[in-house]
Amino acid sequence: MAFDAIETPFGKTDKILGGAATYISLSASYFTQPVKAISVVGNDFLQSDMDMLRTHGVDLEGVEVKTDEKSFFWKGKYHADMNTRDTLATELNVLGSFDPQVPDSYQGCRYLMLGNLSPDVQRQVIERLEEKPRLIVMDTMNFWMDVALESLHQTLSMVDVLVVNDEEARQLTGEYSLKRAARAIMKMGPHFVVIKKGEHGALLFHGAKVFSAPGLPLEEVFDPTGAGDTFAGGFIGYLAKTDDTSFENMKRAVIYGSAMASFCVEKFGPERLQDLPAAEIDARVEEFVTLANFDLSIHLA
Amino acid sequence: MAFDAIETPFGKTDKILGGAATYISLSASYFTQPVKAISVVGNDFLQSDMDMLRTHGVDLEGVEVKTDEKSFFWKGKYHADMNTRDTLATELNVLGSFDPQVPDSYQGCRYLMLGNLSPDVQRQVIERLEEKPRLIVMDTMNFWMDVALESLHQTLSMVDVLVVNDEEARQLTGEYSLKRAARAIMKMGPHFVVIKKGEHGALLFHGAKVFSAPGLPLEEVFDPTGAGDTFAGGFIGYLAKTDDTSFENMKRAVIYGSAMASFCVEKFGPERLQDLPAAEIDARVEEFVTLANFDLSIHLA
Repeated sequence: MAFDAIETPFGKTDKILGGAATYISLSASYFTQPVKAISVVGNDFLQSDMDMLRTHGVDLEGVEVKTDEKSFFWKGKYHADMNTRDTLATELNVLGSFDPQVPDSYQGCRYLMLGNLSPDVQRQVIERLEEKPRLIVMDTMNFWMDVALESLHQTLSMVDVLVVNDEEARQLTGEYSLKRAARAIMKMGPHFVVIKKGEHGALLFHGAKVFSAPGLPLEEVFDPTGAGDTFAGGFIGYLAKTDDTSFENMKRAVIYGSAMASFCVEKFGPERLQDLPAAEIDARVEEFVTLANFDLSIHLA
Repeated sequence: MAFDAIETPFGKTDKILGGAATYISLSASYFTQPVKAISVVGNDFLQSDMDMLRTHGVDLEGVEVKTDEKSFFWKGKYHADMNTRDTLATELNVLGSFDPQVPDSYQGCRYLMLGNLSPDVQRQVIERLEEKPRLIVMDTMNFWMDVALESLHQTLSMVDVLVVNDEEARQLTGEYSLKRAARAIMKMGPHFVVIKKGEHGALLFHGAKVFSAPGLPLEEVFDPTGAGDTFAGGFIGYLAKTDDTSFENMKRAVIYGSAMASFCVEKFGPERLQDLPAAEIDARVEEFVTLANFDLSIHLA
């Protein structure tokens, strides 16, 4: 949980609510509650943001408040194509010494989403759970491949699903072909791999099976910040709700995650995720069905 | 119809058979015969290549042989990612003064595919057909937007379907969003737009409707030369075979075009397209069905 200051071709924000845990929790809350968050914030974190999260059924018992430090802060500026961005500032603050605490009331959780953070911290959370969750999903990024590859591999060996983007999958494996990259990742531990391709959708791999989820063509992307985390939150939220980790259900989870991410980019930060009627989510998911649907049974004779 | 010399990370070729008309004709021949080709070649064009095309039901009456010139020649080298390439040589030769001839026996054709070439030449073919075909599909590229934009717009206003890649759609319209780009193109004439996204598949637009065809994740791309033309050939070949230009059938045509393109990249040049059993095409199309299929009806209650 953090602060972001975002500039896009459409405008800019001051410090607003951000952070992987925020996007994941909010997105997942549309499918399952409570969402039990583990994070750390500083003395500058807003009570109103805490309240907003609690309103969405987010349990904050595992969120440590460090009264003598500030929250993590990121400032960035997106280029005109919205696919690339410059980081203007990164202040680690409380994240510099994050020691994730797992409250007793969190023990027994069945679905664990590890947001992008140091693989050491991600592994500590797994180790502090007395019972292995039914499903552990992990996000990561290039940075950890550069500075903590060995630890990353250790954590990877403990998780069920890795969610990364195409560039990250290629860096992690040295394979350009995403099919080969996914196969290499499955040898590192995860038996499911989700490769996000931004506007081009996402691929889900499991053994020799592949599923391609389309990217919804959008009029415009207002602010891509948090889209990947929102995808992950919708993905694991849907799995937790349905309690079904079959490949067929993972496909549905990828579609729900994609739908949630398509909302996220419509406004600055997590704004769009704060008040989404269930009917809008259903309608968006229907758009994915229409988008991807084709029927070959005619003209085959 | 032309000669290409291709270098990829996997090897290199001498002058081999190439050209948009070659790939389009071969690909379409798996769905409909005869395919009536209009092109121009020089005195260096091989009788064996002519014979091979005729074996695939390609009618060459409209292919002019200029005995005092050489065939068009392109030499290129692909980079390791296979998405970018350097052009090492381009010799226009016979294409420099191409005056496309439409034989009498070609009159009355119902499906016309205009391969990537000067929009003047493309328009001449349309104008030399006494009756407007049921469907005219057009390919083009950035080069013509740079040097012949006005003529390109004139030709665009006369066609039903434009097939371009994402970069070309963006340059033609100045819109980054492919949804907006497609809408802008539909105002220029075509009422269908196909935007090819390489490994990410293709989008089909018609009015407010959109269809996203997945890209088949491949182990490796051996040689991408001709993949776009092969897509176009499969697309229009399937439409000609089924004689159905509804949006639903265009979706199927995009899938068949994608399947044909996925074969093309497996070997150098048009090699893979010279002997494809129907059962292999059907099996490949089935892979697209499996790849894109999902069913939301479970867990919705």
